[in-house]
Parts: sequence; structure tokens; C-alpha cells
Amino acid sequence: MKTKLIPDIIISRLPMYLRTLQRMQEENRKVTSSQELGEHLGISAAQIRKDLSQFGEFGKQGTGYNIDYLLEQLSIILHVDREWDIVVVGAGDIGSAVARYRGFKNRGFKVKTIFDNNAARIGSEIGDYTVQDSINMTTYIKDNGIKIAMIAVPVVHAQEVADQLVEAGIQAILNYAPIHLNVPDAVYVQYIDPSIHLQRMTYYLS
Amino acid sequence: MKTKLIPDIIISRLPMYLRTLQRMQEENRKVTSSQELGEHLGISAAQIRKDLSQFGEFGKQGTGYNIDYLLEQLSIILHVDREWDIVVVGAGDIGSAVARYRGFKNRGFKVKTIFDNNAARIGSEIGDYTVQDSINMTTYIKDNGIKIAMIAVPVVHAQEVADQLVEAGIQAILNYAPIHLNVPDAVYVQYIDPSIHLQRMTYYLS
Repeated sequence: MKTKLIPDIIISRLPMYLRTLQRMQEENRKVTSSQELGEHLGISAAQIRKDLSQFGEFGKQGTGYNIDYLLEQLSIILHVDREWDIVVVGAGDIGSAVARYRGFKNRGFKVKTIFDNNAARIGSEIGDYTVQDSINMTTYIKDNGIKIAMIAVPVVHAQEVADQLVEAGIQAILNYAPIHLNVPDAVYVQYIDPSIHLQRMTYYLS
Repeated sequence: MKTKLIPDIIISRLPMYLRTLQRMQEENRKVTSSQELGEHLGISAAQIRKDLSQFGEFGKQGTGYNIDYLLEQLSIILHVDREWDIVVVGAGDIGSAVARYRGFKNRGFKVKTIFDNNAARIGSEIGDYTVQDSINMTTYIKDNGIKIAMIAVPVVHAQEVADQLVEAGIQAILNYAPIHLNVPDAVYVQYIDPSIHLQRMTYYLS
């Protein structure tokens, strides 16, 4: 584990800066400013300058940021100047949608394969993938040195799957099952549970 | 808008407490403690006690929390002691998976219908739903007094859809399109972008 010299809250904003810069690059833009980035993201320009200054000098006073350069540097910082292979576990609705999702392209990720333990699903086609028997999951992850997995299995199986993934060498898990996973400190987990996101908003609705 | 007397970071943890309590209730459990909740969630017992104390006295020293009671109270606080109707916009892979998602049950939400502007999709069946023409979206939202929407359309259309939703009276948006939305202050947005979640972890991987 890297020593957390830089607060996690700052790290959590960098992917949004990167995404915005990528959109600007696609529009053939060359230069931006902390003001413009801030307006796109609903974050203050001062916050953005402060966040980026943690990693070096990326812009000059008055001339703004070179989009290509800042994008390249943020990609290096976030370790997405490479492509990470991912395994998806669970070939139900969510797992299938995630496996077919085109939004990983140019973001540093590639779904390598998808596993399920249901005989009715094993061997079926999902987009470009053939669903693999999860009995081969550990070997596959070890043989291919895969570090990232997504869990899209029912709640009752999620912890067991997480344990298997960690044992196989997975270091980062994106968990779509609506349950907290217990993993060693050295393993990172992020959660996507739409009900949780919705409940964070209904508090404010009347 | 409710005055934000209670920090948003505390509100953001309440849905996780609620989810854990619901799981315990399903297991016919009656009593829990801040220690046990903390172990389930990777949060300190002190933090949980402090968070909950913002809203009243839910437990007694030494006897812990009554699960049914705390669950009921958190449901009321988060306004999910009712069922919120939701419209889904976009009937592609993600929109379809979200519309069919069974994880909203007992969490306070019900997908009411799904819209798309693609003639090839309008009228097709997705689970229990028939895809509606998005030309009727504004009227539908107004007539049914719907306050919550999920956006699952391509990036290029997301802001335009958000504008239409806000105009129709939507107050909370769960956005699956990988772009920041500009909405009035009184409208809440939460984001689900798996690439962002993954990049928050790759920073720590080597």
C-alpha cells in the first residue's frame, strides 16, 4: 500500500478532472483554466488549483493548463496511462450490462472476461464475451495477473466471492452487490448501490 | 431545500446503516450495537454513535439498539418510509438493467416507467415495462408528480435530458451518463460512473 500522503478526498476528485479534460480533448480544445474546469464540475477554481498543486506545477499564472499535458500527467498519477484488465463475476442483468459497457474505453480499463456459477449461463454469449465457469476463476486471475474485479452476484454470495478474489490476488473490487465487504486493508473496494445513492437525496426531498 | 444543519457526510452514511439494519431484520435479529454495526461497515462504533445522536436517542447504554425501531426511525429520517416513483430515461443496456433491478424493493423506490427517443426501442418490453416515447416524458412526470429520475442516455444527450427533467419538476437525479450535469441548486444529483470508481482505486495500485 502506498503511504497516503495525499488525502483520499483529493484523489477522489482527480478522476473527474481527468474525465472533463478528456471531453475537452475530444473537442480538440488545447487550453483550459481552473475557472472553466470548476464551472464544468461545480467545484471552486481555488479547490481545483489546490488539488492539482499537490502533484506539481501544471499551469502557468494567466495562461491556464495545457489540456494534453495535464491529461497525460493525471493519467500517470492515477495509473491509467495503461489498460487494466478486469474480470466481472456474475452474469445477471448488472454483470451483463457492465461487461458490455463501452464507457471503459480510453478510461484505462478493459473487461477481460465474465464468470458465473450458474450452469444455465456458462457458455452463453454476452457481447464479445463467453460466460466462463467460476470454478476456473482463481486460476484465470492468477495466470493473467489480474488485479481488478467487479462483483455483480447476489448479496448472499458476495462475501464468499470477494474472499476468493482476494485469495487469487485481486487488489481492487468494484462491488455492485448491496452489501459491505470485509477484505484485508491492502485491498480496495468501491461500492455502487443505486438505492444508497437515491436515499442520500431523498433526505433532502419533502 | 432543507437547511443543512447536519453535515452531508453524516447523511451519506445513514443509508448504509439502514441497509445493514434491514439485513439484520431479515435474519430476525432484534438488537444490535454500534460495535456490531461498525464491524459490518468498517466504521468505528464511536462514529456511528455520534452520527445517530444527531437525530435523537435511539439506544440505551448497555442494551444497544432495537433493530426494528432504529430501522423505522432511519427510514423516516431518510424519507423512505414511503415509496418514491422513479422514471428511467434511456433504454439501453444500463437503463434496461436498472429498470429490471430488484434491489429497489423495500428500499423506498419503484421504477414507474422507462423512456427512450429511439423508435426502435419505443414499445419494446423490458421486464414489466413497455418503453415509452420520451416525447411524452414531461407530461408523464407532471401528471404523476414524479420527483426522482435516473439518466441512462449517451453523454451527448445527458444535459439536455437533465434540463427537461428539471423543467418537468424532477428534484433528484441519479446520473449514469459519465458527465457532470449543471442543474439548479435546488435539484440533487448523484453520479454512478464505474470508471471514476475504478480510477479512485488504481491510484493506490502499482
